[in-house]
Amino acid sequence: MSAKINAFAAPAKGARLQHFEFDPGPLLDDQVEIRVAWCGICHSDLSMIDNEWGASAYPLVPGHEAVGTITAVGSRVQHLKPGQTAGLGWFSGSCMFCPQCLGGDHNLCSHVQSTIIGRYGGFADRVRCQAAWAVPLPEKIAPDKAGPLFCAGITVFNPIIQFGVMATDRVGVIGIGGLGHLALQFLNKWGCEVFAFTSSDSKRSEALKLGAHAAVNSRDPDQLKKVAGSLDFILSTVNVGLDWSLYLKTLSPKGRLHFVGAALSPLGIAPVELLEGQKSLSGSPMGSPATMMKMLAFCARHQIAPVTENFPLSRVNEALDHLRSGKARYRIVLHNDLQ
Amino acid sequence: MSAKINAFAAPAKGARLQHFEFDPGPLLDDQVEIRVAWCGICHSDLSMIDNEWGASAYPLVPGHEAVGTITAVGSRVQHLKPGQTAGLGWFSGSCMFCPQCLGGDHNLCSHVQSTIIGRYGGFADRVRCQAAWAVPLPEKIAPDKAGPLFCAGITVFNPIIQFGVMATDRVGVIGIGGLGHLALQFLNKWGCEVFAFTSSDSKRSEALKLGAHAAVNSRDPDQLKKVAGSLDFILSTVNVGLDWSLYLKTLSPKGRLHFVGAALSPLGIAPVELLEGQKSLSGSPMGSPATMMKMLAFCARHQIAPVTENFPLSRVNEALDHLRSGKARYRIVLHNDLQ
Repeated sequence: MSAKINAFAAPAKGARLQHFEFDPGPLLDDQVEIRVAWCGICHSDLSMIDNEWGASAYPLVPGHEAVGTITAVGSRVQHLKPGQTAGLGWFSGSCMFCPQCLGGDHNLCSHVQSTIIGRYGGFADRVRCQAAWAVPLPEKIAPDKAGPLFCAGITVFNPIIQFGVMATDRVGVIGIGGLGHLALQFLNKWGCEVFAFTSSDSKRSEALKLGAHAAVNSRDPDQLKKVAGSLDFILSTVNVGLDWSLYLKTLSPKGRLHFVGAALSPLGIAPVELLEGQKSLSGSPMGSPATMMKMLAFCARHQIAPVTENFPLSRVNEALDHLRSGKARYRIVLHNDLQ
Repeated sequence: MSAKINAFAAPAKGARLQHFEFDPGPLLDDQVEIRVAWCGICHSDLSMIDNEWGASAYPLVPGHEAVGTITAVGSRVQHLKPGQTAGLGWFSGSCMFCPQCLGGDHNLCSHVQSTIIGRYGGFADRVRCQAAWAVPLPEKIAPDKAGPLFCAGITVFNPIIQFGVMATDRVGVIGIGGLGHLALQFLNKWGCEVFAFTSSDSKRSEALKLGAHAAVNSRDPDQLKKVAGSLDFILSTVNVGLDWSLYLKTLSPKGRLHFVGAALSPLGIAPVELLEGQKSLSGSPMGSPATMMKMLAFCARHQIAPVTENFPLSRVNEALDHLRSGKARYRIVLHNDLQ
């Protein structure tokens, strides 16, 4: 149980990952331990390695899209058993008793814990979390591709649930990458009319295969004008600043421009622009365990899966370089070859 | 029927109002004519006189909070009769057949007509509108104070309906003026815990009498910190830029900062600030006829009325000066002494 965990860690800001062993101590009574078989790589792993948000501590073990077999459960854990396949995402614990946790919004708990902030993540042979955050994988979902659902997937699925997107809606997705390529699949199967916004020619043609009904060149104002006043819901997955007023004009009355990408530059939108047409701007982090369960059931029923590239965990630095190059299509998954 | 209408108009940008007579022509078959008994003055009247929005045409007859007796109805109007008391607000017509009109959101119709843009308003002995926009006044509402409900009132009541504000919500109102003093009354009777944000000492004590349970000095960061993370809904009625990030921090998880004040300066909020806590920003214009009916019934049941000061229409320039001075508490109503 308390055998050392074999992991990869960044020893310092921006550094290449190295072998790192640590003693996880005794398993807490509300925790489970997962033997990691697969772990996706997310841009947030790079941000954390690079300490972009000032929240990193080193050695830093990245990895928050882990899937594997539960090998141990704490003394108070009744609903999970060793041998089950489960996934762990960006969040790994919450207080369980605040109004948000009790209300089903564990992801909005003010004490929510991130898997790789102040603790060690999934680029390892084992990872631990509070039992509520280890979400069992339905049988119909292939575990080798499931990792990215636990961060990229739930990040874009969550607002569809939170804001009641309907099958009659015309929806847009800005940025066709790790998050966006899943959003297109979700929204297509949700029954919506789906528009992909991207500046990349190659991604526009791929977007159509992934579920978009139309692909809009986001650098062409004329193409944006063609959809003016027509979209009920736009999901932005990019973490850079764009001319958001331009996108606001593509919204229909009561439309919403929703952000899941952590763009740091101010919106540049004035309150008066929201009045006419009763428009909303909003943002959300990853979803709750209950929403993850809904997402997984939806994926199983509609055969939705991330498009992935595989690397062995022992070659994690190569995989990170590939992600940094912007060439990953669309999500890299590491398989654990440490044992 | 086509006798001349006796009005007050600004002959040019920013000019003092003068007597102005015009022939309204034949009443259209979907219109009604109202003999104006009372008309509130709104800041938007000043904005239009001053052509702040570039939408003004002169001579400009302001006035879009008119209440009086219906004197004539067009040939196709069945649901209203001469002799009824009705009010007319900022909007006076819409297409009636677009998805918004047919969906009950006439206020979001892309062809919605403003009472004082491209037509003559309520600073007159008579005013006309499309019948749908002449909303009958319930008997229990005193007509001499009702005018401001049709613009100030519906502007702040509408988002309560649109965004499903609940009696269990903690809500804030920014700016205690013509709009805000009605918002406090509505939200108090809605069952909410109500916070008033204002920088004025005198308005803070008045806010408590109007329905606020607490008054917060918006210039004191310590007082804002005291309500951090606690408000479900904030309604901003001001048309100036504030440090909106500061107010965002007062929102609880899933909280909304909603604008009805037409502030022109950019929000200064970055998308990343919306992610944690799943926060929303939004705006809305005045409400639909159906929402106005709900508002009037609610006012009648809860004895909600604007706090008004009265001037005769013949002294409209004095009244406008008083409004410009910022001393009006809280809404000026003109009574028609032209006849």
